[in-house]
Amino acid sequence: MSRRKFSLGVDFGTESGRALLVDIQTGEEVATAVYQYADGVIDRTLPDGKPLPPDWALQNPADYIETLRQAVPAVLESSGVKPEDVVGLGIDFTSCTMLPTDAAGTPLCLKSEWKGNPHAWVKLWKHHAAQPEADKINAIAQERGETWPQRYGGKYSSEWFFSKVWQILDEAPEVYAAADRLIEGADWLAWQLTGRETRNLTTAGYKAIYDKRAGFVSEKFLAALDPRLEHVVDEKMLRTISLLEERAGGLTEEMAKLTGLRAGTPVAVGQVDAHVSVPAAGVREPGKMLMIMGTSICHMLLGREQKPVEGMCGVVEDGILPGFYGYEAGQSGAGDILAWFVRTWVPYDLGGRDPHEELEAEARKLKPGETGLLALDWWNGNRSVLVDTHLSGLMLGATLDTTPPDIYRALIESIAFGTRVIIENFERYGIPVEELCACGGMPEKNTLLMQIFADVTGRSIKLALSAQTSALGAAMFGAVAAGKAGGGYDSIFDAIGRMAGVRDTVYTPHAQNHAIYGELFREYLQLHDHFGRGGNDVMKRLRVLKARQRGSRA
Amino acid sequence: MSRRKFSLGVDFGTESGRALLVDIQTGEEVATAVYQYADGVIDRTLPDGKPLPPDWALQNPADYIETLRQAVPAVLESSGVKPEDVVGLGIDFTSCTMLPTDAAGTPLCLKSEWKGNPHAWVKLWKHHAAQPEADKINAIAQERGETWPQRYGGKYSSEWFFSKVWQILDEAPEVYAAADRLIEGADWLAWQLTGRETRNLTTAGYKAIYDKRAGFVSEKFLAALDPRLEHVVDEKMLRTISLLEERAGGLTEEMAKLTGLRAGTPVAVGQVDAHVSVPAAGVREPGKMLMIMGTSICHMLLGREQKPVEGMCGVVEDGILPGFYGYEAGQSGAGDILAWFVRTWVPYDLGGRDPHEELEAEARKLKPGETGLLALDWWNGNRSVLVDTHLSGLMLGATLDTTPPDIYRALIESIAFGTRVIIENFERYGIPVEELCACGGMPEKNTLLMQIFADVTGRSIKLALSAQTSALGAAMFGAVAAGKAGGGYDSIFDAIGRMAGVRDTVYTPHAQNHAIYGELFREYLQLHDHFGRGGNDVMKRLRVLKARQRGSRA
Repeated sequence: MSRRKFSLGVDFGTESGRALLVDIQTGEEVATAVYQYADGVIDRTLPDGKPLPPDWALQNPADYIETLRQAVPAVLESSGVKPEDVVGLGIDFTSCTMLPTDAAGTPLCLKSEWKGNPHAWVKLWKHHAAQPEADKINAIAQERGETWPQRYGGKYSSEWFFSKVWQILDEAPEVYAAADRLIEGADWLAWQLTGRETRNLTTAGYKAIYDKRAGFVSEKFLAALDPRLEHVVDEKMLRTISLLEERAGGLTEEMAKLTGLRAGTPVAVGQVDAHVSVPAAGVREPGKMLMIMGTSICHMLLGREQKPVEGMCGVVEDGILPGFYGYEAGQSGAGDILAWFVRTWVPYDLGGRDPHEELEAEARKLKPGETGLLALDWWNGNRSVLVDTHLSGLMLGATLDTTPPDIYRALIESIAFGTRVIIENFERYGIPVEELCACGGMPEKNTLLMQIFADVTGRSIKLALSAQTSALGAAMFGAVAAGKAGGGYDSIFDAIGRMAGVRDTVYTPHAQNHAIYGELFREYLQLHDHFGRGGNDVMKRLRVLKARQRGSRA
Repeated sequence: MSRRKFSLGVDFGTESGRALLVDIQTGEEVATAVYQYADGVIDRTLPDGKPLPPDWALQNPADYIETLRQAVPAVLESSGVKPEDVVGLGIDFTSCTMLPTDAAGTPLCLKSEWKGNPHAWVKLWKHHAAQPEADKINAIAQERGETWPQRYGGKYSSEWFFSKVWQILDEAPEVYAAADRLIEGADWLAWQLTGRETRNLTTAGYKAIYDKRAGFVSEKFLAALDPRLEHVVDEKMLRTISLLEERAGGLTEEMAKLTGLRAGTPVAVGQVDAHVSVPAAGVREPGKMLMIMGTSICHMLLGREQKPVEGMCGVVEDGILPGFYGYEAGQSGAGDILAWFVRTWVPYDLGGRDPHEELEAEARKLKPGETGLLALDWWNGNRSVLVDTHLSGLMLGATLDTTPPDIYRALIESIAFGTRVIIENFERYGIPVEELCACGGMPEKNTLLMQIFADVTGRSIKLALSAQTSALGAAMFGAVAAGKAGGGYDSIFDAIGRMAGVRDTVYTPHAQNHAIYGELFREYLQLHDHFGRGGNDVMKRLRVLKARQRGSRA
C-alpha cells in the first residue's frame, strides 16, 4: 500500500477561516482548524474608530493571512501529517468580496496613507451600499440593449464587482486612482500564496460580467457608465482568466514558512465557497440541484445549454464544473429567519435547552396546513426569482390560538416554498431539476426542515457526506492543482469519485403531504406575485417610510 | 343637607358579576364587590362532565343568583349604607345571552330532567355554534327581500337571539318544546328580582329583530325559517317591550332576603353592558362615539336619523338613550390580540415585570411608520365592517431587525386603523363622529394605545371618569327606576348630569403623526379590501384547510 497523500483546503468565510486536511484517496477529513477573524465583519466603524454609513460591510485582509498562519500549522500538527505528504492546496472565498491593492498586491488598507479611507478596505460580499451604482448599471444596460444581463437573470446586483468598483470611483476617486489592481479576495489570496496574479473564471463569470466566449463586457459599455471606467479591465484587472482546474502556481518560500507547508506546493486558482460545494457534494451532472443551506440558501445547478432564466443569479459556462453551464440562484433569508424568530420571539424559559430543538419537536406534530398560517420568506428581501432587496416578510392567518411552533413551522414552509419557486422557474426555462442534494449548517440540525423541503418540492433530498463542503471542495481543487503527476488528480471528476459522497439518509416526499403543500403553494404563489410583482407595492413603500422616519430622528 | 341616597348597579359579565353602590347626587362610587362565577364560561364540558362540541359557550344561571347573594350584601356591609337609602337597583348583562325556562321562570338546566342536555343551559353571547342557522336566516331574508337586515348592517349574527333559538329547535326539539319562555339573561334576572316578566328594548332591538315602529319580525318570515317558529314570539317570548327608563317592578320579599335590600326597592328593566356605558361615560348627544375597550371593542354612537350603515352591528331607535337612534359597531379583537402577543411571544425574562408595560415603554420611542410593519387586526375575525369571523391576522413588513416592540406597536396601530374604518364608514352613511370617548380596561392601562388612537383617527379622546361604566350605567338606570318621587331621577339625562363624567385627561391628535398615519391607513385599507372583500380569499381557505387537517388527526 502506498503512502497516504493529503490535500489542504482553506475556506475563507464571513466570520472565520477554516483549514481542512483531507486524505485524497478516501476523502477522509483528518483534521480541521478554525480561526475567528479578529476584526470580523466591519460594519459599524473602521478599526481606527471612524464610523461607517449604513449598508457597509468590510473585512480586514490581515485576517486572511492570520488564518493561514494559525489554522494551517494547526491541522498539520494535530494530524501529524508531514508537509511532503500534502500534494496541493486549494482556497475558497466568499464572493464578490473585493479589494484595491498596489502593483505589488499590498492591500491599500494596510498602507498607512490609505488605512483611514473606508474605500481602501475589503468590500465584503454583503456590502450593500453600491445600490445606486447597480441601479445605474441596469438602466444603462437596458438603454443600450446589452445582451449580457440575460446571463444574470435580467439584473446586475449591488453586491457584484462593477457596482463596488464604481462606488469606489464615485465616492473615493483618489482610492480608485491609487489602486493598481482591483481584485477578488480569492484571487488576491492565490497571488499572496504563489506570488503570481491570476483571475479565476467563477468570480469573473458570476460577478464581473465575463463570459468564456464573449470575454469581458465591452469597453463601450464601461465608458457609458463612466469614461474613467472605459479601460478598467486592462488597467486594474486581468484579461486572462484561469479555468477552475488550473494551478495558480507553487507556494512561495515566505508562505511556506508561514504555513509550515513545503515551498512549491501546488496551489489551485481561487475558488468560490458555494461553487466548490457542488463537486464536494458529489454532484457532477445536470438534474441534481445542490442547496447550500445556512443563513441563506444558494441553489447550484448544472445544465447542458445556456438559457436566459429570469431571476437567477447567473449562468457561467464552466463556472462550476468544466463542460457544463453552471446555474446559480438563491434565497437571501433562510436560517437567519428562523434565528430571528428564536432571538426575537421565543416565549418560554427553556432552562438552557435549545429553542430550535424545542420548536421543531412541537412543529413536527403538526400536519401540513394545520397551522392555518402562510408566510412569505422575505425577511431579508428576495434574491431569486424576484431579485428585490426591498421586499419584506409577511405572515398571514394568525388567530388567538396560534402558537410559536405554528409560526416556526410556517416559516420553515415558507422557505421551502421559496425554493420551489426557484426550482419551477428553472424548469419553466428548460433546465430540469430532478433531485435535490443539501449541504451546509441547516440540514445537519433541522431534520423537520429537510422533510418539509422534500414534501413541498416533491423531490427526494440527499445530504452531502461532508459537513464542511466548501473546505472539502477547495481541497479537491488543491488535489487537481497537483495533477496526477504530482500525486493528485488530473480532473475534478476524478477527485469527486474519490473524495466526495452523500450519506445514507435520504428524505423522500410524502405523497399526501405533497398534495396538500400543492394547495398551499398555489396560495403562496398568489401572495408572492401580488406583493412581489406590482399587485401591491406596500412593502417597498413601508421600507421608504421606515427609512424616512428613522432618518428624521433627532 | 339632605341624607345621602344611593343606587345599586349589578353588572353580569362573562367571567364574574360585580355590584357597585353609587351616590346618586355625586356619582361617587362608594363600594364595589365582585363574585367570580363558580362555573365561569362552560365551553368544554357540562358540570356533569358531558363534553361539548367546538364553538359552544354556556353559563350556569345559578352563578347570577350567587352574584346577588354574595356581592350585594358585601357592598352594603363595606359601605355601611342602609337598605332604606338605596333608592333603586339596575342590572346589566352581556347579550345576546339567553336561556330556556319553564312558565315560572325556572331555567330548564336547573331542573333534574333537563340538566344533562346542553341546550337547556344559558347560551352565552360568544356561543358560536349557531352559524348554520345564522347563514340560513340571512339567506332566507335575502330571498324574501326582507328590509329588516338594513338595521343590522346587512347581516344577522350567529351570536343573536333567533340563531340560538333555532339551533335549540334544530338540535334539541324536546328542549324547545319544554321551554315555556326563551329569554335574555338580563330579562330573566329582572324577572327573578321582581317576580314580573319584562322584555327590554335593547336586547329585543339589537338581537331579536324588534323595532319600535315595526314591532317584531313577521310571523311569515319566522314560518319561512321553520313552521314551528311561526308563533315563537307569542308562544315563548313577550310582544310587549319595556323602554329603558321603565321600572321592571319592586324587589320581591325573597330577593330582599337574599340581597339584604328592602322589599319593594324599584328595579329597572334589564340592560346591556355596552349600551348602559354610554350614559355612564356622560355621552348624551350625537357626534360623540363611545369606545368600550377591552378584549374586544364596542363602538356606540347616537344619531338623529336611521341610516342603513353597511357592516354595523345594528341601529335601534331608543336602544341606547331615549330620543335617539342608537348605533353599534365593533371590533372582535383588541386587548386579546395584545394579550396573545404577550402570551405567545414575549422573549425576555422580565423578572416579574409587566410585559405590556415593558413593550409599551419601548414602542413609545418609535415614530409612526418607523416599525416598517403593517398589520390587519383580524386575529379574532372582523365584526365591523366586514362581518366575517373567518378572516385572520396578517403582519407584513418584517425584516431581520424587527423587534417585539415593533410588533407590539404595529398591533396597536392595526387596532386603531380598524376603529378608523368603522368611524369613516359611519360618516360615509351620514352619521358624524366628531369626538371619541373611551371606557373599559384598556384605556386605563395603555396610554400609548390611546395616543395612537387619537393620532390615527385624528380625533380627540376623552376618558370616562368611572372605571366600571357598565355597573355605573346600571346603577343610573336603577336611580331612574326609582323616579324623582322615589328619591331618584325621572330621566336618564338627569342621572347623567349628576352621576356621570369624564376625566381631565384628553388625548389630542398630533398633526404630524396623523398625517403619517393617513399614509399608513391608505395602505391598511388596501390590504383590508384585498383580503376582506374578495380580492384574495386565502384567509378563509386556510381556515378550511386548518379545520380539515385538525379534524383528520387520528
